[in-house]
Amino acid sequence: MNEQELLKQQVAASAAQLVVPGSILGVGTGSTVKWFISELAKRDRLTPLNLAAIVTTSNRSKEQLESYGFKVVELADIDHADLVVDGADRVDDQLNGIKGGGGALTLEKSVAVNSEKNVWIVDEGKLVHHLGGFPLPVEVLPISCEQNFRQFEQAGLEPTFRQRQDGKRYITHYGNYIIDLGISPLPIPSGLAGYLDSTVGVVEHGLFLDICDELLIARHDGTVETRYRNQLNKIPS
Amino acid sequence: MNEQELLKQQVAASAAQLVVPGSILGVGTGSTVKWFISELAKRDRLTPLNLAAIVTTSNRSKEQLESYGFKVVELADIDHADLVVDGADRVDDQLNGIKGGGGALTLEKSVAVNSEKNVWIVDEGKLVHHLGGFPLPVEVLPISCEQNFRQFEQAGLEPTFRQRQDGKRYITHYGNYIIDLGISPLPIPSGLAGYLDSTVGVVEHGLFLDICDELLIARHDGTVETRYRNQLNKIPS
Repeated sequence: MNEQELLKQQVAASAAQLVVPGSILGVGTGSTVKWFISELAKRDRLTPLNLAAIVTTSNRSKEQLESYGFKVVELADIDHADLVVDGADRVDDQLNGIKGGGGALTLEKSVAVNSEKNVWIVDEGKLVHHLGGFPLPVEVLPISCEQNFRQFEQAGLEPTFRQRQDGKRYITHYGNYIIDLGISPLPIPSGLAGYLDSTVGVVEHGLFLDICDELLIARHDGTVETRYRNQLNKIPS
Repeated sequence: MNEQELLKQQVAASAAQLVVPGSILGVGTGSTVKWFISELAKRDRLTPLNLAAIVTTSNRSKEQLESYGFKVVELADIDHADLVVDGADRVDDQLNGIKGGGGALTLEKSVAVNSEKNVWIVDEGKLVHHLGGFPLPVEVLPISCEQNFRQFEQAGLEPTFRQRQDGKRYITHYGNYIIDLGISPLPIPSGLAGYLDSTVGVVEHGLFLDICDELLIARHDGTVETRYRNQLNKIPS
């Protein structure tokens, strides 16, 4: 195993320790979450966790969870999750994030906001002072996507339609398109979030603000650093 | 023709006079808009309007327009409309409205915000001082609709899932559900609009704020009253 994978395993093992037996767990997606699932299975083998339910935001995680014998249900089947463990594409000093690089931002946000606690696990390469340096995905309805595109263009948000490998437009689980925005580092991301929230045709966007409660960071020196949102010197997000 | 229909025809005829030859026209839906389309056709027969394009928000309006020989295109085929003529379920003193009683709120709002000018035609029974007295439709993604429903319930917004005649849930053009909210009259509707805009799982809602530029009202005394948004003593919406 190379050093990068070792780090991911380490942070994933720390996250697996946060899972409370008998609780309802949400599981995200990504290369670190893949490690989380195998660490969860390891823990469950030692002492059964008897989780009340598991929901997940990707088919890949669903398959992996089921391969370990975990039963996965739909978000509609539960009231809320007790804990969600997920990755993030970028995380800022205030524990706000950009997510949805994989295209499942709407489901990821639905699961996240319907959870008591959100833990993100990342390697230190994902950390930024201000959100940026990664395309911000925006899920838009096909009917008005061309108008949205031009609107974003005029606002200087450098839009591009996300494409599949065959050059056609990527289509989300909900039958919509994704416009990726090229954003400069955002000191106060709530401004852009509010703009996108109120834009007609926008189903959801990848700014996850005030959602992450606990951030586990795999440091290149081999340590795992934990940051808590309620211990930050909060500035308005 | 009864008096009610005569009033609708009158206000529809006034609206038809606002259509500029050669322009791009958006046409909404509803019983008054039905009259608008026939008055538009009447005008077009006398002096051809040579409209550059027409978009509409309902199949019924599309069929009626086509029956008069008008060619209807999709919103995606145009950049924006010059004028949209539509009805409204309720309109307040600030020319803000509740729309979407028919379930097409998302398309209606997309067409509306992509138009230079919006004219609403209503009978005086639709006028209220503050928005309320009519269910406020909210289009929600199926995946998290149960969570949204409970959230609205806890917020005192009296949610009900819209049902079809067979008792099953109404499904929108986009494959989503509609939750109708029972709202008390809203002096400052932008508060609720902002809350709904930022609620994960909400695709769109029926609060149409700062959209209507010109309101044509069919008065029971047989007159047509016109109100202009830019002539209001604006309070924050």
